[in-house]
Amino acid sequence: MKLSKLVGDRFKERPANCQIDSHALMVRGGYIKNVANGIYSQFPPMKRISQKIEAIIRDEMDKIDGQEVLFPVALPGSLWEESGRYESVGSELLRFTDRTGSKMVLGMTHEEASVQLVREYANSYAKYPFMIYQIQTKFRDEARPRAGLIRVREFTMKDAYSFHTSQEDLEQYYHKCYDAYCRIFARCGIPEVAVVKSDSGMMGGNISHEYMLLTPAGEDSIAICPECGYSANVEAAESIVENENKLPKEELKEVPTPHAGTIEELCDFLKIPAENTAKAVVYQRNEDDTFVVAFIRGDLDINEAKLTKVVGCDIHPADIVDDSVLTAGFIGPVGISDKVTVFFDSSLKGIDYLVTGANKVDTHYTGFNVERDCGDVEYYDLAKIAEGGICPQCGKKTITISRGIEVGNIFQLGTKYSKAMNFTYTDENGETQYPIMGCYGIGVGRMAASICEVRHDDFGPIWPITIAPWQVHICCLRSDDEECKAYADNLYETLQNKGIEVIYDDRKARPGAMFADADLLGVPVRVVVSPRNMGEGVVEISTRDKSIQQKTPTADAVTEVENIIAQLKEQIYSHVK
Amino acid sequence: MKLSKLVGDRFKERPANCQIDSHALMVRGGYIKNVANGIYSQFPPMKRISQKIEAIIRDEMDKIDGQEVLFPVALPGSLWEESGRYESVGSELLRFTDRTGSKMVLGMTHEEASVQLVREYANSYAKYPFMIYQIQTKFRDEARPRAGLIRVREFTMKDAYSFHTSQEDLEQYYHKCYDAYCRIFARCGIPEVAVVKSDSGMMGGNISHEYMLLTPAGEDSIAICPECGYSANVEAAESIVENENKLPKEELKEVPTPHAGTIEELCDFLKIPAENTAKAVVYQRNEDDTFVVAFIRGDLDINEAKLTKVVGCDIHPADIVDDSVLTAGFIGPVGISDKVTVFFDSSLKGIDYLVTGANKVDTHYTGFNVERDCGDVEYYDLAKIAEGGICPQCGKKTITISRGIEVGNIFQLGTKYSKAMNFTYTDENGETQYPIMGCYGIGVGRMAASICEVRHDDFGPIWPITIAPWQVHICCLRSDDEECKAYADNLYETLQNKGIEVIYDDRKARPGAMFADADLLGVPVRVVVSPRNMGEGVVEISTRDKSIQQKTPTADAVTEVENIIAQLKEQIYSHVK
Repeated sequence: MKLSKLVGDRFKERPANCQIDSHALMVRGGYIKNVANGIYSQFPPMKRISQKIEAIIRDEMDKIDGQEVLFPVALPGSLWEESGRYESVGSELLRFTDRTGSKMVLGMTHEEASVQLVREYANSYAKYPFMIYQIQTKFRDEARPRAGLIRVREFTMKDAYSFHTSQEDLEQYYHKCYDAYCRIFARCGIPEVAVVKSDSGMMGGNISHEYMLLTPAGEDSIAICPECGYSANVEAAESIVENENKLPKEELKEVPTPHAGTIEELCDFLKIPAENTAKAVVYQRNEDDTFVVAFIRGDLDINEAKLTKVVGCDIHPADIVDDSVLTAGFIGPVGISDKVTVFFDSSLKGIDYLVTGANKVDTHYTGFNVERDCGDVEYYDLAKIAEGGICPQCGKKTITISRGIEVGNIFQLGTKYSKAMNFTYTDENGETQYPIMGCYGIGVGRMAASICEVRHDDFGPIWPITIAPWQVHICCLRSDDEECKAYADNLYETLQNKGIEVIYDDRKARPGAMFADADLLGVPVRVVVSPRNMGEGVVEISTRDKSIQQKTPTADAVTEVENIIAQLKEQIYSHVK
Repeated sequence: MKLSKLVGDRFKERPANCQIDSHALMVRGGYIKNVANGIYSQFPPMKRISQKIEAIIRDEMDKIDGQEVLFPVALPGSLWEESGRYESVGSELLRFTDRTGSKMVLGMTHEEASVQLVREYANSYAKYPFMIYQIQTKFRDEARPRAGLIRVREFTMKDAYSFHTSQEDLEQYYHKCYDAYCRIFARCGIPEVAVVKSDSGMMGGNISHEYMLLTPAGEDSIAICPECGYSANVEAAESIVENENKLPKEELKEVPTPHAGTIEELCDFLKIPAENTAKAVVYQRNEDDTFVVAFIRGDLDINEAKLTKVVGCDIHPADIVDDSVLTAGFIGPVGISDKVTVFFDSSLKGIDYLVTGANKVDTHYTGFNVERDCGDVEYYDLAKIAEGGICPQCGKKTITISRGIEVGNIFQLGTKYSKAMNFTYTDENGETQYPIMGCYGIGVGRMAASICEVRHDDFGPIWPITIAPWQVHICCLRSDDEECKAYADNLYETLQNKGIEVIYDDRKARPGAMFADADLLGVPVRVVVSPRNMGEGVVEISTRDKSIQQKTPTADAVTEVENIIAQLKEQIYSHVK
């Protein structure tokens, strides 16, 4: 490809609306163009990167006996009604009607479609296990798309679905896929991806893992124990709290606390530490807006994912507009309205003395004791694990919280979809059974953007050789110099004939502009051809990460470029297990 | 791939709802599964065929300097408002709103998106010409999906857009693309595809061609002159009518024609031939339902595409519910309401005597003469060319009408989109100009289905080697026979190691069932391994089209299979120019 013909602009200025570097660089480098909020077109370099990532994914999926299929983007609403998700999923599921008025949705994930495809075929145990996958456009009507290709509304995703006749078989396959994912990330140049336990959210099922690329630009929080290697999404990490009684029992007593409607104000006013309080956090059920109140130690935070599981349906932070049921800012467990559901976090268990709301404006209780004042309540793990917290695996107070981008996920779905959609098979004994499912996703565009986020410098991406849009970038600094041009033209042809992908800057441009463009395109190997170099009988060969910067005799350039490509590939493959 | 693991059922019975063979075979062979009206999922064999077709298309697009990009499936309505198509396109454009209430559409073609992607980039003449293309999911909310993958609502399509600074340059590139398309069809095994002139309909622009695969199952009609090679879509073919005066002039005279509301009834009643009548065909403008009446000789039919062009906006056959404006069945040009627009077909020009409606119930005029009774009217070519009609190229009465499936199309768009979307560049003289565009489409799934339609027998598809899901199909007739199994296993491995794609029927099944499945999968080369053959030291090798059926010594099987594959490929490539 000649750079003079490459469609897409590259430019210097960081666009104003880009919060993270990869977003800015992918706009500046002519990779993507915004079409609508969270919707992008891809210029040729991005399309090339996507295709390489897709090829790696395809190869690894095929190696674990995956069979590639294709599901529709536009799905009948009736299929999602079968699984119950037409109702249960929020407005990120884009619902519409076709010309006949039939309900349709845009596929954001394809569990239903996968069941629909195989439910006649997979009617006997002998057909199991099997896995099908697709690489296809998805749409998720995100409320807040952000960070370029990291969180978009339309994206290309590989989604795979496996089907099994036993939990053991699912687990075995799940493990295979777990390893295949590690190989995929290593082959794409990010072997450091961490695997963390996750909450499976709306997907159903229990065991699931996320593949997290750690970077401050990430939007997920991951709890990691550097001591024992434990790692989990903060949403899924068990919170272990040591409950100590720092104050003796006292009588329950109403105290006036004017304008002290927050824990901070309350602690300021009463001069007590937050851990001596029981704070109320209020949510509402999505389905009917009824209130759910979670009580937790004042210095801890509620983990919404855990609370959702305990409540058993989707919830959202409450909007208390009417104080007839709840007295915002002064909510406590004693005598709380019977119109709300109450949950207690384990951090309150066995604590003799707490300060909490009195369900009356400008009033709190001191001396609150859960067992004495509320009777025999059940405690749940509802707290968010925090920096310095106790590691659920080794028990040390070593938890660190890091940010990460989720670049893949794997789920054990169990029989959620097969049961809901009445998908059965006949087992060896002639009995009807529900297949057990797993599902496995990787977003292609997000992966590319994440790689850019952790592999870039101030001037542009540093693409790993395995996914780079081209392998070699030739800069001919003087295309009006006959010798330069002839050499560069020839090098371009020769490398291409060897199957190497080359981008060739044949423009009449200043060297500075050429190098800036080369940096933005992030191609791993650069060859600079200039009259001065020609005079010395050499070309300059360097790698985008500057680990190699050398002059090579013109006659050896092709071999040297081949060697360097081989080296770079070896570096990548040394991390593939 | 082992057949015992291949996801998808194959079966004998022709499904009731399949009108054409390819549809029935692709359902019976486990290629596709219906998900909703005109929406299909693809099983692995279909996905493999699609990928091969896509690879051929990609290769040919790259060879004519195409750069692959990706546009979104879900597009903002505002982009289609810019071009005017948000309003002008009918309900096949699926419109919906996202969670914020913004207007969106599902991309059915991407002219707007292509302009949006490049309009900042291509701001100077130096950037031209260039072509970008994508292979992406499209959605067209067809009123009547039919024939399996031939006419669907969701489909994968290659759409390409080229940009030029002069009509000559567009024409040069158009010709290149014309040839690339011929190579694509030849490489996919259908070199017989005919190129016909077409009407460019809603795409805008003037010159366009369709690539038609002739088959009685096709839904398009193509006018072909076997004498001179002329061919055109009936919608676009010029109709040449010889106007002869068979009757002398007479006075205009009202005659009662009770219940003779159709040309047939009228001719029966008056005992005259249809060519002596001027018939009215009534349409309504889509935009405001106002009436358009076309008059044409009674034995000819109106070509709606031609009439649409003359009217200048989209129209539909009229629904006359109120006789205050038009007297259905008795409409004529004399004294017709001034609330309607009237057009005359050339077939009426210079005819002295005609019978036509009198705009009064149960009444016609005899002796109607356009010039005398309507004054100086303009005539247009509005008639549909018919079997035995006059060839617009050689003038002989040799036109035959064939059915065909449109497998590709190319359009010269001109400046329709660049003007509408205010997309300009600066030319050599510093003047602002509108780029001239071309666009070029091929439907991937429709191509596969069309190939199946013209390459099948009663038992299944006969896939060309270049797009077949696998190249070789091994049937091991007795997998419980150790020698058979060992040989077949080894052959499977050996062929695969040579890069040949093999489907291996390793099941314990009756030979009849195996052969039926092999026929349905339509793989070009079949190798049958059986105890009897083993006893003779041979395997049976045959091609799916039965042109080769031979016994080959077991030791030579691999080489022979390679030879046959090479032969089959050569056959295909002998048609590629």
